[in-house]
Amino acid sequence: MKQSKFFIPTLKDSPKEAECQSHIYMLRAGYIKQIAAGIYTYLPLALRSIKKIEQIIRAELAKIEAAELLMPSLQPSELWQESGRWQKYGDTLMRMKDRHDRDFAIGPTHEEVITYIVRDVLNSYKKLPVTLYQIQTKFRDELRPRFGLMRGREFIMKDAYSFHADTDSLDETYQEFNQAYNNIFTRCGLKFRAVKADSGNIGGSESCEFMALTDIGEDTIVYANNSDFAANLEVYNLPIGAKSPDGNGTIMHAKGIEVGHIFKLGTVYSEAMKAQFTDETGVRQDLIMGCYGIGVSRVLMAVIEQNHDEFGIMMPKTIAPFDIHIIVIDPKADNQVKFASELENTLIKAQYEVLIDDRIERPGVKFSEADLIGLPIRITIGKNIEKGVIEVKFRNELVKHEVEIAKLINFIKEYY
Amino acid sequence: MKQSKFFIPTLKDSPKEAECQSHIYMLRAGYIKQIAAGIYTYLPLALRSIKKIEQIIRAELAKIEAAELLMPSLQPSELWQESGRWQKYGDTLMRMKDRHDRDFAIGPTHEEVITYIVRDVLNSYKKLPVTLYQIQTKFRDELRPRFGLMRGREFIMKDAYSFHADTDSLDETYQEFNQAYNNIFTRCGLKFRAVKADSGNIGGSESCEFMALTDIGEDTIVYANNSDFAANLEVYNLPIGAKSPDGNGTIMHAKGIEVGHIFKLGTVYSEAMKAQFTDETGVRQDLIMGCYGIGVSRVLMAVIEQNHDEFGIMMPKTIAPFDIHIIVIDPKADNQVKFASELENTLIKAQYEVLIDDRIERPGVKFSEADLIGLPIRITIGKNIEKGVIEVKFRNELVKHEVEIAKLINFIKEYY
Repeated sequence: MKQSKFFIPTLKDSPKEAECQSHIYMLRAGYIKQIAAGIYTYLPLALRSIKKIEQIIRAELAKIEAAELLMPSLQPSELWQESGRWQKYGDTLMRMKDRHDRDFAIGPTHEEVITYIVRDVLNSYKKLPVTLYQIQTKFRDELRPRFGLMRGREFIMKDAYSFHADTDSLDETYQEFNQAYNNIFTRCGLKFRAVKADSGNIGGSESCEFMALTDIGEDTIVYANNSDFAANLEVYNLPIGAKSPDGNGTIMHAKGIEVGHIFKLGTVYSEAMKAQFTDETGVRQDLIMGCYGIGVSRVLMAVIEQNHDEFGIMMPKTIAPFDIHIIVIDPKADNQVKFASELENTLIKAQYEVLIDDRIERPGVKFSEADLIGLPIRITIGKNIEKGVIEVKFRNELVKHEVEIAKLINFIKEYY
Repeated sequence: MKQSKFFIPTLKDSPKEAECQSHIYMLRAGYIKQIAAGIYTYLPLALRSIKKIEQIIRAELAKIEAAELLMPSLQPSELWQESGRWQKYGDTLMRMKDRHDRDFAIGPTHEEVITYIVRDVLNSYKKLPVTLYQIQTKFRDELRPRFGLMRGREFIMKDAYSFHADTDSLDETYQEFNQAYNNIFTRCGLKFRAVKADSGNIGGSESCEFMALTDIGEDTIVYANNSDFAANLEVYNLPIGAKSPDGNGTIMHAKGIEVGHIFKLGTVYSEAMKAQFTDETGVRQDLIMGCYGIGVSRVLMAVIEQNHDEFGIMMPKTIAPFDIHIIVIDPKADNQVKFASELENTLIKAQYEVLIDDRIERPGVKFSEADLIGLPIRITIGKNIEKGVIEVKFRNELVKHEVEIAKLINFIKEYY
């Protein structure tokens, strides 16, 4: 992809509204642009990363046999009346009236709609369990939107809902989601912890939050730092000063950004909305439900909050918008342009995604913007190609490598 | 994917609200479910087809160097005041007030937002042309929603916007989109014609509609049926009784479903919103714009309207939810289940997508639902596997093929 066509509106100065480093860099590097308070456009760079996060989510949820669907954003108020949340949800629920003066919620979450969809369909224990999910834009009228994509009014979520005939089946799916979430956040390159939590507005019994560890964030979390945690697989929530369960950890404090949340809902919605199935003995029972959310756009923000330096963003390779940034020093030199184009084709064949900076700009501007954008590998094409040599730099290192052109692909494969 | 996990709520009878065959079958086959008038859930089958349509669009737009972004649905009224459409757009524009009593449009289209985004960024002829697009849920408060996904109030669109320093550049991109759209609709399996059209609410000069030919639809189109049209590449709009331009065609009538629309907008929005660039002589000029839409969810509906028989849907292979439907006659027979699972793995390795009907249902139910859903290939696993034979049926044929198991993959590859 040519950078001249790829709309990356970088900014020299930090916008005054930015409140944390990820927010500053996402604005400065041309990842996002604010349209209104808490409402952003995902510019091409951010959208490519978000699509990769979504693909990781889809791959991990396919493993646990969840099926994807897409529910509407506009939800008739009647469904929210049935659950009782039309009154209870308060001002964060965005509402509108259609031309016939009918009330709609602009979906912040979809418990009511999914319960309506499965009601009368999942009507027998023989059809259970079933897990459905969607990846969708959600709306929530936050009183104080802040930190860019962290607390926005329009954001991308993955929300999943599971339906069961008994609590053992719910427990099993809940544990599968726990594992899937650990896989997803690990693959996205996040440092995170899973902590038991309140279930808030959604209702229900047991729940667990997945918190990205940062210096910002709205929750303080306390956790044991021991070898188990290195694998991000254990769930604890310990009071300050507590002894770590296996005796060899250290109690740590951090701010956390909530990136995921899994809930055992139980029968809160099925009871209110009369979603029942016939059990093995012929008796009608309320469906037992779980629900499972991931803040997709928030994951991107948390990753950047954890991965940056004084020059800009350092994207992990799994969700980087492109793998490789080719800098053409002089786009008016035919041999450099031709070389870059051939190299792009070679790299694409080797399964790499490539952005070519073909703009007529000073090399200093190109290098500093490349650092700001933060693709994992930078390849510089200048006069040195005449000597059969090319410069390669990894974003997370300071050293530059002089690599023979013939050995380039192997060199990159070794490190990436 | 196991059908027992994949939520396909089929209906035995035609829902009374359904107004055309595609609408009836999409409801009956468990592709969509209505949530409110003109507002649908895309159930797992429909969503898989829609994702394939989206990937075809992305692939064809990548060829013409368009970059994808994602703008918000919530658009501050101030932008619509700038363009003058806050007043002009009328009741089809959905509007809401946030908790601070600020007015927002719930986006039916994004000329204002995209112009706001590029304004002050695409500020020099050196940065032009640029083409940006998104694939997104759109909202339009239709007075009379009808025909399922055809005239809905919430629907998926691809909308693209191009920016130019001169009309030659706009003409070039407009022609590239014309070609891209022909490629996209052809790859989706649509029979369509491109006709010159009004530019309606959007404003601007030249425009062209891409119409899927059906017995339903809201426009009557008249076109010349000659060899040129077989390739879906020519644009005509002829009065009834006109002589065909090359003298050897026949004038045809059909109803059309508008699936795409390309516009030369000119400077309507850039002038109103002061989006200017500096030209080669140092003079400030209004950006010249084009815009280009595809009704993504509507494409799915039009394809089904064109591809069905008395038994159900007949999905073209390019956008079918799965390629192959494996019917397990007796899911309680271990050898059939094991064989189906191994066959699924073999087919997945050969790049096919597979749905396995593992439900405990009568074979008659499974076969009729398979016809209703309409995957291109049906493979039946019953007692005949003990004789080393398997039954293969293509959805668009009546004949059943008895195929030796060892020859199955080659047999399928030959036909598909």
